[in-house]
Amino acid sequence: MKITERARGIEYAIRDVIAPAKKLEKKGAEVLHLNIGDPNKYDFDTPNFMKKALEKAVEEGHNGYASSKGLKQAREAAAEREKRVNGTYINPEKTLVTAGVTEGIQFIYGALLNADDEVLIPEPAYPLYESMAKFFSAQPVFYRTDEDNHPVTEDIEQKITDRTRALVVINPNNPTGAVYPESVLKEIVELAGQHDLLLISDEIYDLLAFKEFKSLGAIADDVPCVVFNGLSKNYLAPGWRTAYAGFKNCDELFEACLKEARNRLSSVAPMQYAMAEALKREDHVKETKQKLEKRRDITYRKLDEAPGISCGKPEGAFYAFPKLENVENDEKWVLDLLEEKNVLTVFGSGFGAPGHFRIVFLPPEDVLIPALDKIKEFQEERVSVTHD
Amino acid sequence: MKITERARGIEYAIRDVIAPAKKLEKKGAEVLHLNIGDPNKYDFDTPNFMKKALEKAVEEGHNGYASSKGLKQAREAAAEREKRVNGTYINPEKTLVTAGVTEGIQFIYGALLNADDEVLIPEPAYPLYESMAKFFSAQPVFYRTDEDNHPVTEDIEQKITDRTRALVVINPNNPTGAVYPESVLKEIVELAGQHDLLLISDEIYDLLAFKEFKSLGAIADDVPCVVFNGLSKNYLAPGWRTAYAGFKNCDELFEACLKEARNRLSSVAPMQYAMAEALKREDHVKETKQKLEKRRDITYRKLDEAPGISCGKPEGAFYAFPKLENVENDEKWVLDLLEEKNVLTVFGSGFGAPGHFRIVFLPPEDVLIPALDKIKEFQEERVSVTHD
Repeated sequence: MKITERARGIEYAIRDVIAPAKKLEKKGAEVLHLNIGDPNKYDFDTPNFMKKALEKAVEEGHNGYASSKGLKQAREAAAEREKRVNGTYINPEKTLVTAGVTEGIQFIYGALLNADDEVLIPEPAYPLYESMAKFFSAQPVFYRTDEDNHPVTEDIEQKITDRTRALVVINPNNPTGAVYPESVLKEIVELAGQHDLLLISDEIYDLLAFKEFKSLGAIADDVPCVVFNGLSKNYLAPGWRTAYAGFKNCDELFEACLKEARNRLSSVAPMQYAMAEALKREDHVKETKQKLEKRRDITYRKLDEAPGISCGKPEGAFYAFPKLENVENDEKWVLDLLEEKNVLTVFGSGFGAPGHFRIVFLPPEDVLIPALDKIKEFQEERVSVTHD
Repeated sequence: MKITERARGIEYAIRDVIAPAKKLEKKGAEVLHLNIGDPNKYDFDTPNFMKKALEKAVEEGHNGYASSKGLKQAREAAAEREKRVNGTYINPEKTLVTAGVTEGIQFIYGALLNADDEVLIPEPAYPLYESMAKFFSAQPVFYRTDEDNHPVTEDIEQKITDRTRALVVINPNNPTGAVYPESVLKEIVELAGQHDLLLISDEIYDLLAFKEFKSLGAIADDVPCVVFNGLSKNYLAPGWRTAYAGFKNCDELFEACLKEARNRLSSVAPMQYAMAEALKREDHVKETKQKLEKRRDITYRKLDEAPGISCGKPEGAFYAFPKLENVENDEKWVLDLLEEKNVLTVFGSGFGAPGHFRIVFLPPEDVLIPALDKIKEFQEERVSVTHD
C-alpha cells in the first residue's frame, strides 16, 4: 500500500516528543512536562458556567447535527465578543464555527492554496501553518522576526511573490509569547492591501496578553482577513474542539469554506451552546492571567540565569522560546535534556526555527521551578564540558 | 481571490436542498422534513446513560486535549464491541477515534489517494465518498447495484484498473437502506485480495438492520480493511461527532492516518469517555428498531401506492431510495415536490443515481404519513397530466 506524499510529509514536533517521554515514564522516570499547550493538563480548569451550559445543552437534547455554518447564537456571540473585546467587526453571517482553529486553517488553505502557491508564515510559527500548506502541495515561506520576536515587515515585503496568496499572523504568538506592536500590524495590513493577500490572524491567546493587545482584525477593515479565536486557550476548554473563524472582506472565500464545512455536516453541537455563553464574559480570565504572569516572570528569571541560553520576556500566551548558543541540533538537545534531566520541551526546528526550544510555562511552581533548575543544571554541565 | 478547483467542486446535495426549504418556511409554509438522517431531529433522543457519562467526564475535568489516536478506553471499547456484536476483530492499538466517520474518510483518502487514483464506490453512495475523492483530485468510480440495491460484483471486477486503490462498501446502506448478503460480501473480499485494494467498510448503521447483518470487517480477515462505526446513528448522538476507524491488515496506512490525526491534535475529548460507555451496551437499540421498522413498513406501503414510483423494501438504516419513472431531472422533481407539496426529500443525483430520490423515514407517523400521502398526490397529479 503506497502512502501519499502529502501524508508522509506531515511532521508535528509537539506530539513527536511524546513517544520518547512515555518510554522513560514506563521505566519509572518522573518526567516534568513543559511541552503541551494544554492548560487543563495543569492547574487550570474549564470555568464552571461553561460546563453547566454544556450540560444544559446536552440535557435539553441539542445532540443532533448543528448547522454546517454553526449555531446562530454562537456566531452572534462571537461577533459581539470581537467588537467588545478587540473593537474588531466580524459579521455573524460570515463566521464559521470550526473544530478548533485547526479546522479553520484546513478549510482556508483548502479553498485558497493550489500546488506551488505560497503562504507567508512567521519564523517560528505554530507547526500546523507549515504542515497544512505542504499537505496541499503549497509552499510555506517563513518571514523573519526580530530579537523581540516581532515580524520584520521589510522581510515580509521582500518575500512576497506573484505566488503569495496569504500572510499568517499569530498574535499573541505561539511559540514565542510575543505580542505585536500596533505599528507593525498596520504595516502588515498595508502590505496585504498592496499585494492582494489574505491576512490570516490567529488571535486564540488574545485575552492572555501581559501588555496591551491590538487585534489585527480591528485594523484590517478594508483588506481580506480571517480572524481566528475559540474556546481552547482563553476559555480553558481545548478538548471541546470549538472555535470560530470570522471572514472579513472575503465573501467568496467564506462561501468556499462553507462548502467544505458542509462536507463534514457540522462541528460538535452541544459545545456550541456553551460557546454562545462563554463568549459573553471574560471574568474568569483575571485569575488565569495572574497565575500565568507569575510563572512567566519565574521562567524569564530562571532562563536568564542558565548559561548558553538567551530569551526575551514573553509578552503573552504561555510560551517562552529561548535561543540556544552553539547548539546545531536542537532536536538532539531536547532529547538529551529529556534523557538526562527528565524535562520535556519541544525543539525549535519543529516550529521552523532551529537552535531554539519551546517551553510551556503553564505548570504550577512546584513543577515549573525544578524543571527550570534542571535546564540550568543541564546547561551548566554542557557549557563546562565544552570549555574543557 | 481565486478559489481552488478542489473547493469549488464540492457538492453536497443533502445540505443543498435546505436553503430553498428555509425560504418557503420564511414565507410561512410548514415543510415536512424527510431529508436529514439525524434521528435527534425527530422523536429519538441520545440514551440517558450516555448523557450522564458525558456530563461526568466534563465534571471530572476531561476537557483538555485527548491523545491524537483517541482515548485508550474508547478504543478498547470499540474493539470489544466489534467482536461482541459483529465477530469482527480490530486491534485497539490500530484504531483511531475520529470526528464522525467523515474525518475517517478524510484521513484515509488523504493518505491513500494521489491525483487520478480511483476509488470504487456504490451507485448510489453517501455523497462524501464521491466529493472527498474529488477534493484530493482522485476519481470516484461508481459500481452498479442490482434491483435489491446489492452490489453487482461482476461490475466491480470490470471496473478495477491499475489505478484503483480502494473499494467502498456502505452496509447497511445510505441512501438505499439495503443490507448486503454474506455471499456478496465474500465475493467483494475476494476481489479486494486479488487486486490489492483497500476495503473501506462503513457500518455506521449495523445495529439498525431489519434482517441478519453480516459485517464485511468480520470476513475481511486477511485483506486490508478499515471498519467505520460510531455514535452518530446506532447511538443517537450525531452532534457529538465521535466515531472510530479500525484498521485491519494495513499498519502503514494506520500510521499515516495517525500523522494526519496529530495535525489536528485530538478529536473532541469528553465525548470519548461517553463513547467508552456507550459501546458496552446495545439495550437502547430495541426501541429504536421497533419504531423504525414500523415506519419502514408504512413508507414501503405508501410508496407502493404512488403511481410512477417503484421502491424495494428497505432492509436497514432509515432510508428509502425510490426510483422515479419518466423523470429525467430528479433535482427539479425534488424542488417541485417541495414547492408544491412542502415535502422535503433529497434528489438521487446527489448520491450518484439520477432518477431517484431519498426519503428519511425517521419522522413520527403524524409527519411521515401526511408527507407520503402528499408524495402520492403529487405523483397522481403529474402522471394524470402526462397522460392528458
